[in-house]
Amino acid sequence: MSKLIGNAVFGQSGGPTSVINASAAGVFTEALRQTGVIEKVYGAANGIVGILNEKFYDIGQEDPAELELLKTTPSSALGSCRYKLADPDVDDTDYKRILEVFRKHNIRYFFYNGGNDSMDTCNKISKFMQKAGYDCRVMGVPKTVDNDLYGTDHCPGFASAAKYIATTCMEVYLDARVYDTGMITVIEIMGRNAGWLAASAALASYKGYGPDLIYLPEVDFDLEKMLRDVQRIYQKENKVIVAVSEGVKTREGKYIPELVGELRVDAFGHKQMGGTASVLADYLRDKIDCKVRAIEFSLMQRCAAHLASLTDVEEAFLAGQTAVRCAVDGMTDLMVGFQRPAEGPYQCEINLVPLSKVANTEKKVPREWINDEGNFVNKQFIDYALPLIQGESRIALKDGLPRFAKLKKVPVNG
Amino acid sequence: MSKLIGNAVFGQSGGPTSVINASAAGVFTEALRQTGVIEKVYGAANGIVGILNEKFYDIGQEDPAELELLKTTPSSALGSCRYKLADPDVDDTDYKRILEVFRKHNIRYFFYNGGNDSMDTCNKISKFMQKAGYDCRVMGVPKTVDNDLYGTDHCPGFASAAKYIATTCMEVYLDARVYDTGMITVIEIMGRNAGWLAASAALASYKGYGPDLIYLPEVDFDLEKMLRDVQRIYQKENKVIVAVSEGVKTREGKYIPELVGELRVDAFGHKQMGGTASVLADYLRDKIDCKVRAIEFSLMQRCAAHLASLTDVEEAFLAGQTAVRCAVDGMTDLMVGFQRPAEGPYQCEINLVPLSKVANTEKKVPREWINDEGNFVNKQFIDYALPLIQGESRIALKDGLPRFAKLKKVPVNG
Repeated sequence: MSKLIGNAVFGQSGGPTSVINASAAGVFTEALRQTGVIEKVYGAANGIVGILNEKFYDIGQEDPAELELLKTTPSSALGSCRYKLADPDVDDTDYKRILEVFRKHNIRYFFYNGGNDSMDTCNKISKFMQKAGYDCRVMGVPKTVDNDLYGTDHCPGFASAAKYIATTCMEVYLDARVYDTGMITVIEIMGRNAGWLAASAALASYKGYGPDLIYLPEVDFDLEKMLRDVQRIYQKENKVIVAVSEGVKTREGKYIPELVGELRVDAFGHKQMGGTASVLADYLRDKIDCKVRAIEFSLMQRCAAHLASLTDVEEAFLAGQTAVRCAVDGMTDLMVGFQRPAEGPYQCEINLVPLSKVANTEKKVPREWINDEGNFVNKQFIDYALPLIQGESRIALKDGLPRFAKLKKVPVNG
Repeated sequence: MSKLIGNAVFGQSGGPTSVINASAAGVFTEALRQTGVIEKVYGAANGIVGILNEKFYDIGQEDPAELELLKTTPSSALGSCRYKLADPDVDDTDYKRILEVFRKHNIRYFFYNGGNDSMDTCNKISKFMQKAGYDCRVMGVPKTVDNDLYGTDHCPGFASAAKYIATTCMEVYLDARVYDTGMITVIEIMGRNAGWLAASAALASYKGYGPDLIYLPEVDFDLEKMLRDVQRIYQKENKVIVAVSEGVKTREGKYIPELVGELRVDAFGHKQMGGTASVLADYLRDKIDCKVRAIEFSLMQRCAAHLASLTDVEEAFLAGQTAVRCAVDGMTDLMVGFQRPAEGPYQCEINLVPLSKVANTEKKVPREWINDEGNFVNKQFIDYALPLIQGESRIALKDGLPRFAKLKKVPVNG
């Protein structure tokens, strides 16, 4: 295999996670080590948008200590985007532009970090470059708190969010039962189509301090069934905690806020789509006469780097590092996925997946991991998720507060 | 001073904090050491309610390792209450009952952990016992995330909440600016009458990753002024973060949800008082055409023991320990307060305050610590709060999740 000499570009795409920058650290440190093969290492501002706009940062000019700090800096250091490329058979303008930019900057290595949509982008670019006869190695680096990426046992970002959700549920559990009066708590957790994150609340229950009920988008949501579930537990315990995925839908395909869309009016007279938890809390308060509190874990669940899983941080780094090593070794058109041994203790093994297989396929929580009633998860989920949240990422601190990476972001002249 | 020999009871009152149980650990371990003076150490279930109902746990039967774990277990291990005693001149039924219970169980030491209302309770009980000629030493142990307790430089519970708020604001700051599109984030922070917690968001800004605007209940809230503040920053930066205390009120004395109470209807047709942040977000979305997100730090800010300030944990323990030592030394009718040296590095010194002085007096953020415009805090607040959030409380972990104290709660026979 002949060496492909040229420059490398890395971009971050989609919603941020606690460890997306750990993958960046993996790509950057490994790419900078590949002297004689990778000449310059660029970071694209706001993912593919930065490539289209030729907006690159010269990573070689960054302080290595700051690149190290990326491992514990949440969110997206280069900026992200939600730009979706057209089907190249319909409109290839963007692809031609990308090819033009790659040629101009002699980009021979393209690493793209993201979820389903980003792997689709990655795949389309890879195929276009091949068709155009432009020699460029394209590698996908997985990322999504939602954990719904096909072809990998799990996805960097998920475990840290799961650790945040489980830990916070445990703390809220204690807080929600200090008084001897009745109380119902409804916790809303991210996950539009897959319930991996909401299911993670079960890790808290496994420890004895978690939700009584968990509803995932994998099962049709039935408002009256939930009410009966809650009433049954409330009558016995006087306290109920419900964890619900923001993406639960009724049999008719309606999201919870849509269900009451016609009734809910915001403070300024607009129809309000509101949060799933707050609608369910309103509903329960209407039916059961007690204090009902809605809690949204909101952005915190995907950016709480102070509570990241060390396993996740290390695997995110590994994914970035592996993408570079594989590309330098001649591989292309692949995503770095993970697998674990079928038996014995957890171990993270690399599983390279063709980009075309990953793109746009969603992985959901298997139905058999959810109980028959559809209101909790089974032991299989605990066995799956528990190894992933092991270890504590000790973030760098100054004055008792996080010390995040500060990149110089030296622009590359076009 | 003759030794007062008898039993001791400790109760927890009001809303929980991350470190209320650290004070319990301080009281329990010190009281159990006072052999020959304190004979039995009891915990009251649900504060004063447990005393009225004669519901005590025998703390001497607890495993010392579990009492140690109380230091890092959030919320209220014995259970709390919001029960308010009557004015004894009007109705002394409860006081007579407490005296009866104290006599029956030979309670000679009463330690009560709480905020303003609880110190009022403590004070009234103390005065009643004195009047009745019953020899009982009564000591208040301060506790409130709100930090509004009179007679102490600061209050256990506040610093850990402040550390959570500052750290989380920093993480949310990064998350809220990953896309290059406009975005406004409104963060709601606890504090009904005093703005100490909302002000803590400024610690994040001091580090360069915090809110642009902070509104406290100490300053009359003007909706249109806030809109102008937000617009000014949005036009320049394209991103705005607003931190707002749940307790901000207009000049006319109306809370924000009340302001729009007539317009806001919940999903089931009820008038909805809703959250301050969500009402402000609705308002801003109506006026400025961009993504506006409301975030409530909700219960998490007061129960996130995994992110507690070590300074706070140690001081909470110290407060409990000191209460016992002082009582055994013959002191009574006091609250354990803190003070710091007027100059030089921060140090926590004990300041004993008569209960009658503490009861029902609220301490607010000084107006001169807030900027003239009333939309941020000055450097004095940073100098005040920063030393309090130093050090990380390393919670005990098992399987990557918190290992909370498990008390046996052996009932004391009545």
